[in-house]
Amino acid sequence: MAKEKTRDVLLDAGKKLFLERGYNNSGLEAILQEAGVPKGSFYYFFESKEDFGLRVLDKTAEDYEADVENYLGDVSLRPLDRLKHYFETHCDKLESKQCRNGCLVGNLSQEMADQSELFRTRVGQIFRRRVDRYAACLKEAQDAGEISTELDVRELAEFWLNSWQGAVLRAKTLRDIGPLKTFVKVMFNLVLCRGGVNPCERS
Amino acid sequence: MAKEKTRDVLLDAGKKLFLERGYNNSGLEAILQEAGVPKGSFYYFFESKEDFGLRVLDKTAEDYEADVENYLGDVSLRPLDRLKHYFETHCDKLESKQCRNGCLVGNLSQEMADQSELFRTRVGQIFRRRVDRYAACLKEAQDAGEISTELDVRELAEFWLNSWQGAVLRAKTLRDIGPLKTFVKVMFNLVLCRGGVNPCERS
Repeated sequence: MAKEKTRDVLLDAGKKLFLERGYNNSGLEAILQEAGVPKGSFYYFFESKEDFGLRVLDKTAEDYEADVENYLGDVSLRPLDRLKHYFETHCDKLESKQCRNGCLVGNLSQEMADQSELFRTRVGQIFRRRVDRYAACLKEAQDAGEISTELDVRELAEFWLNSWQGAVLRAKTLRDIGPLKTFVKVMFNLVLCRGGVNPCERS
Repeated sequence: MAKEKTRDVLLDAGKKLFLERGYNNSGLEAILQEAGVPKGSFYYFFESKEDFGLRVLDKTAEDYEADVENYLGDVSLRPLDRLKHYFETHCDKLESKQCRNGCLVGNLSQEMADQSELFRTRVGQIFRRRVDRYAACLKEAQDAGEISTELDVRELAEFWLNSWQGAVLRAKTLRDIGPLKTFVKVMFNLVLCRGGVNPCERS
């Protein structure tokens, strides 16, 4: 296997197991077995399990950010339609997995924030970039007159990210996308409608 | 130690360790050491670690429900003031712990939903009771004319619980109550204000 490929196979195996069992509960042996890679190769690419965990987080964040950009950067749609399209598609993806696993960044944030400053900081940076991206799209919506200028887009983007994480967590507990659908409905029908402009009643 | 007391000491030790390290990462030996109780006593009260974990969940939920009732059942205040008072007090409590640990029910829901049907079901029941309690208070607010009759209080209560869980998760990652304050602000200033009645602009 080419070196590059081996590294990716390990990262994918790590992501799969961390999602299914959590970080602490995924032993190195299980990761190697899942990847079909010997221990020596692991230590060729990664200094430690913690280093590996951080790289899994980074790769997950990169993939996520490329995906979100496909939606929120699609200027053929109006800004709010991009956001809605993105979150509705995300609901469908989670439904196709019966809402199992949840969000790796959210999961590791919950599991590791009190146990590792490196994880806590890295997850904080990833969440920050997500908020930046949502805020930029909401600002475009504001500039286009889709939502009120009274709204604080930064605060809304923070609320958006956090509430979505909570909805994903609850969907995982229920194995049902109800909480995700409620999230989209309340965000678009109640939160964004404040201040005289109602994006939900547009033609 | 009286039997009753030993059982409670074990449950408290379990709650502490599960909050700090998670369920899978808290070995029985560590729980016994934290509680200062021999293994035989543990098996006198609990069939297994899973049985113990479920009892820790139940006790946590009972304590939470008694606490929330003190606030939401306080008829000397208007319904929305009760909700606001409860969540603001909860913010202060989390701040006093630097937002560490988070919510045990939310944490175990994230960690265990895919690993144990017993945990998933129990957490689902506890969350359901929380939603019921919030919905009842929102209904009182609606009956008192504090919020619009257009609002679906059940849906709002679901959104409330999930978004709060997400805010607690993010606060843990940031070690800052900013996300909790944003939650209270957005819920009261944007979500509940929909439909012509604005509880935030009351005298």
